[in-house]
Amino acid sequence: SRSINLAVIPGDGIGQEVVAEGLKVLSAVLPQDVKLETKEFDFGARRYHATGETLTDGDLEQLKRHDAILLGAIGDPSVPSGVLERGFLLKLRFAFDHHVNLRPSKLLPGVATPLAGQPEIDFVVVREGTEGPYTGNGGTIRKGTEHEVATEVSVNTAFGVERVVRDAFARAQARPRKKLTLVHKNNVLTFAGHLWTNIFNKVAEEFPEVTTDYIHVDAATIYLVTDPGRFDVIVTDNLFGDIITDLAAAVSGGIGVAASGNINPGREFPSMFEPVHGSAPDIAGQGKADPTATVLSVALLLRHLGYDSEADRIDAAVTADLTERAGKPARSTSEIGDALAVRVAG
Amino acid sequence: SRSINLAVIPGDGIGQEVVAEGLKVLSAVLPQDVKLETKEFDFGARRYHATGETLTDGDLEQLKRHDAILLGAIGDPSVPSGVLERGFLLKLRFAFDHHVNLRPSKLLPGVATPLAGQPEIDFVVVREGTEGPYTGNGGTIRKGTEHEVATEVSVNTAFGVERVVRDAFARAQARPRKKLTLVHKNNVLTFAGHLWTNIFNKVAEEFPEVTTDYIHVDAATIYLVTDPGRFDVIVTDNLFGDIITDLAAAVSGGIGVAASGNINPGREFPSMFEPVHGSAPDIAGQGKADPTATVLSVALLLRHLGYDSEADRIDAAVTADLTERAGKPARSTSEIGDALAVRVAG
Ligand SMILES: CC(C)[C@H](C(=O)O)[C@@H](O)C(=O)O
Ligand SMILES: CC(C)[C@H](C(=O)O)[C@@H](O)C(=O)O
Repeated sequence: SRSINLAVIPGDGIGQEVVAEGLKVLSAVLPQDVKLETKEFDFGARRYHATGETLTDGDLEQLKRHDAILLGAIGDPSVPSGVLERGFLLKLRFAFDHHVNLRPSKLLPGVATPLAGQPEIDFVVVREGTEGPYTGNGGTIRKGTEHEVATEVSVNTAFGVERVVRDAFARAQARPRKKLTLVHKNNVLTFAGHLWTNIFNKVAEEFPEVTTDYIHVDAATIYLVTDPGRFDVIVTDNLFGDIITDLAAAVSGGIGVAASGNINPGREFPSMFEPVHGSAPDIAGQGKADPTATVLSVALLLRHLGYDSEADRIDAAVTADLTERAGKPARSTSEIGDALAVRVAG
Repeated sequence: SRSINLAVIPGDGIGQEVVAEGLKVLSAVLPQDVKLETKEFDFGARRYHATGETLTDGDLEQLKRHDAILLGAIGDPSVPSGVLERGFLLKLRFAFDHHVNLRPSKLLPGVATPLAGQPEIDFVVVREGTEGPYTGNGGTIRKGTEHEVATEVSVNTAFGVERVVRDAFARAQARPRKKLTLVHKNNVLTFAGHLWTNIFNKVAEEFPEVTTDYIHVDAATIYLVTDPGRFDVIVTDNLFGDIITDLAAAVSGGIGVAASGNINPGREFPSMFEPVHGSAPDIAGQGKADPTATVLSVALLLRHLGYDSEADRIDAAVTADLTERAGKPARSTSEIGDALAVRVAG
């Protein structure tokens, strides 16, 4: 008999609420013979305030024993900026080598977008997750003085770039349009730019069916609002991916429906799935948060573990729910979760 | 009697066409007693192919003798990516210490925007122009091998950050809404982030009338499409500024109307004014390019040199022209230039 051994990190703010709904839908979609075991972890602001810890070696050992991780959101205004981001979120991505950060964007019929004319949007961003300006390299001298110098070093390796580029080509190959766009800034960041561009062009030779193009990150933001339909799969650096996926989420239904996977494709470590949105402390505890992004992250999780038909059922349920919901009064977090649980079970 | 000694760099592609119209409007708007002297420089792809040069010390010496520089666009697919960008555009910004890169965004009535509901947009981005990831620091080892490592170093100094932050506060103070937003990624790029945030907060104390806030660059792209009206003045790093000003241009009428100034506020060196758009080789020589962005850059140039009422006349002419033009058939580059020249003279 099959089983899923899931680490659950509700985290801060609305994280608690949306994860509860994600688990509700997960339980509803799984067949009887799959045993779901969950273990909850209390990472985030409360734990930090109570113990000063964000993520210890012992924590990593425990998390490692799971098949996957479901995360709500981490972050609270009571914690200085950067402490939980670098000390928990990024530490986990780096420790578990989550080098493929997968962020699909699909505008569903009837879903509100800030763009005029309800354009067709259906693309996936493959964001590199373990290199670039996110490595924490850099430093500060003469801190706090008028002579302070602070540096941030973007580190890019052939090893790190090639594996994520290869992953993106494989994803493009598997999609009907078979198109892959490299987004970078190779006319200014020429060292990293050459590395990315050369490897992209080299790997392209192995995927002759995939159409490729290149766009500077600044121009990419223009296309994302004027012609988002031009994108199929995008592969990009960690920081550029961070920026354009927020924009991509905004134009394709908002961060209420944007899912993401922090994936270790070789499965040496558990992958982590989380909504793109943050902990939104302003609306926490009020049942106002949309759990759809978390539910869609559960679908990514299932697909990663090989439960494709269950993932498909969740995607279909969300599509049906969003399409019907258009124009209707807002529902509470648990009402949305209940509706989706009913749909996936039915 | 007054005079303007202007260096003109038409550059590549549509640069030639739009600069001609910019000069047409400039001549039309200047009072009789102002003597306009222009000297044209042939920088860009042709010069590079002919001589291998992008911008020599001798060139800089010659440019330095002018009151300001008007640039069309530099760049051509026949030149490898980065050569003209680093070798000309960025070299000039750094050599002439253009640390205030000014990019206004205003959506004029009737002008097309990809956003639904024609939102109100009227803000200015003050982009730092001489630091950050644009310094060219970094390098590559084991180039072309599977062990290649490429780094890009973002360099941020208290001196460099403080002067641009101070400039942005002064601009915010002079505007009716008096609001300044710092855009950075201080939760991940913590070294540079702390420097920017601390200096921003310190300088804020000198401007008690200015309301301030802080937004991460990823979230800023969301607001730029969902609530652009929230912005008044934005101050940000060189790379973040590059990215968000293309998006800002896209939502506020397109790059056909986006102007920019590369400013040396202390006037130790001539400042340079240019449209945000590139050389667009695909439409070059066909009279299809919109010269409005260049004409608005001429207005920024005039304001920088103290010709405020002339700059106001250009802005008003463009507003009137764009408002009337809405929905009408496209005009040629020179038709638009002619129409604007008539308006500013009238
Ligand atoms: C919270 C932050 C560290 C994170 C990032 O920058 O990657 C977030 O913005 C995201 O996109 O997941
Ligand atoms: C062409 C390039 C060097 C330049 C930049 O990145 O600054 C351009 O994108 C701009 O915004 O002026």
